[in-house]
Amino acid sequence: MAMIIIGEKINSTKKSIAQAVKARDSAYIQEEALKQQKGGATLLDANCGTLDAADEPEAMEWLVQTIQAVTDLPLCIDSPNPAALARGLAVHKGKPLINSISGESERFKQVLSLVKQYQASVVALCMDDRGIPCDYETAREVGVKLINTLLQQGIAVEDIYFDPLLRAVGTDTAAAVDCFRLIENISTVFPGIHITCGLSNVSHGLPERKHLNRAFLVLAMEHGLDAPIIDPTDPTAMALVYAANTILNRDKRCIQYTKAYRAGKLTF
Amino acid sequence: MAMIIIGEKINSTKKSIAQAVKARDSAYIQEEALKQQKGGATLLDANCGTLDAADEPEAMEWLVQTIQAVTDLPLCIDSPNPAALARGLAVHKGKPLINSISGESERFKQVLSLVKQYQASVVALCMDDRGIPCDYETAREVGVKLINTLLQQGIAVEDIYFDPLLRAVGTDTAAAVDCFRLIENISTVFPGIHITCGLSNVSHGLPERKHLNRAFLVLAMEHGLDAPIIDPTDPTAMALVYAANTILNRDKRCIQYTKAYRAGKLTF
Repeated sequence: MAMIIIGEKINSTKKSIAQAVKARDSAYIQEEALKQQKGGATLLDANCGTLDAADEPEAMEWLVQTIQAVTDLPLCIDSPNPAALARGLAVHKGKPLINSISGESERFKQVLSLVKQYQASVVALCMDDRGIPCDYETAREVGVKLINTLLQQGIAVEDIYFDPLLRAVGTDTAAAVDCFRLIENISTVFPGIHITCGLSNVSHGLPERKHLNRAFLVLAMEHGLDAPIIDPTDPTAMALVYAANTILNRDKRCIQYTKAYRAGKLTF
Repeated sequence: MAMIIIGEKINSTKKSIAQAVKARDSAYIQEEALKQQKGGATLLDANCGTLDAADEPEAMEWLVQTIQAVTDLPLCIDSPNPAALARGLAVHKGKPLINSISGESERFKQVLSLVKQYQASVVALCMDDRGIPCDYETAREVGVKLINTLLQQGIAVEDIYFDPLLRAVGTDTAAAVDCFRLIENISTVFPGIHITCGLSNVSHGLPERKHLNRAFLVLAMEHGLDAPIIDPTDPTAMALVYAANTILNRDKRCIQYTKAYRAGKLTF
């Protein structure tokens, strides 16, 4: 398995990013981009969804151009607003990942046309018009239906990044194991599909969340997670990704692990 | 699952411990014992096997008494030498864990009589007169036979700590996944059995081994490992144990995680 690391840090839910986007502070954004690339990111999330809805499309265009002025990494263009997605996609270089489509009828229609127009990959959120499923069986049904609809629309399975919409173990202690079961099932039913996930939801409401996020990351990799949305500047998390990859027998002759070691990524 | 943490540090393969045992330096040994207890150990390994064979039995008696003078924790009396085990067991307070028995005929006979005499728990190494099995099927057969023989001898399943004898991923990249399969099978076939394992073998020959050991630990917990032999003074490893326990839905209402947090074990 070649892991895809989606750097999560350029997201305007973080105050410093919101300020930088508002002020069009290129230097700050570009530094964040380069730090994440150095840490091992293979894709960078670009989100400015907390701005005024009227400003978001223009801000997204600026954000995509600003990041890609310093890196060749493709971006994960992240917005619930199709107008912002469209502006970002129009200026993006390389193959973009759209974040996100879902089974919600209106959103599905609008985002699907962008996926087709830009031959993009797309994050498929496991939800529909009824909302986010709360149990494994419903989630599986919603996910399978959404993926099958995308395939019927001619989207290649390799371009689909299924997001199980992980819930918090603090409110439902079975949330993580249900998620493992779901992503293992989806990976088996749709070979070649990618599985993505924002990890930090799992620890919502609990203290010292990083430990829970890291344990979840390692375990989820076993069950099929190959495109986590994480902080690539956290060396402990990144070292665990390399290590779990080796432990799970996905690293022929331990080459990726020793390469990461030689690049100084395991020593801290 | 209540995790059993076997503190690995009082082992004479470490030079400082070998010196302390040779010099009968009680203060040094007792400090190591208390540090491990503070870190969260529930059992402490006691090993002085690198001494001259003639001195080991007397040294083991001293070691057991020295450790138990400062802590009520039970010990994992660790020697391939039945004479050393016997001397340690004779002075041990509480229920000891003998490390170890195996399917080797001579060792089986000698250690079994000690297990019975002291109503001890016992680590059962997955090997027999032919040596350490190199593939899953043979390992499973050797393990099942050894456990069944112990049960037939009247040893309670809860008193058996099965050790899969983990091999290094550096020499066989399937070593860890084979081990997961083995301990999952043994845990399922013999409900109530404990699974123990020295983690560090898995990373033998590779650099920055701690990451591999930690990823292995988290994944092995999912497959049944409940009594790892680890360094309880490594806060990152211990935090991952608490976190994995919670992620794996074995921590009702996240009580153990929040208790560990309040005890200051997750903040560093």
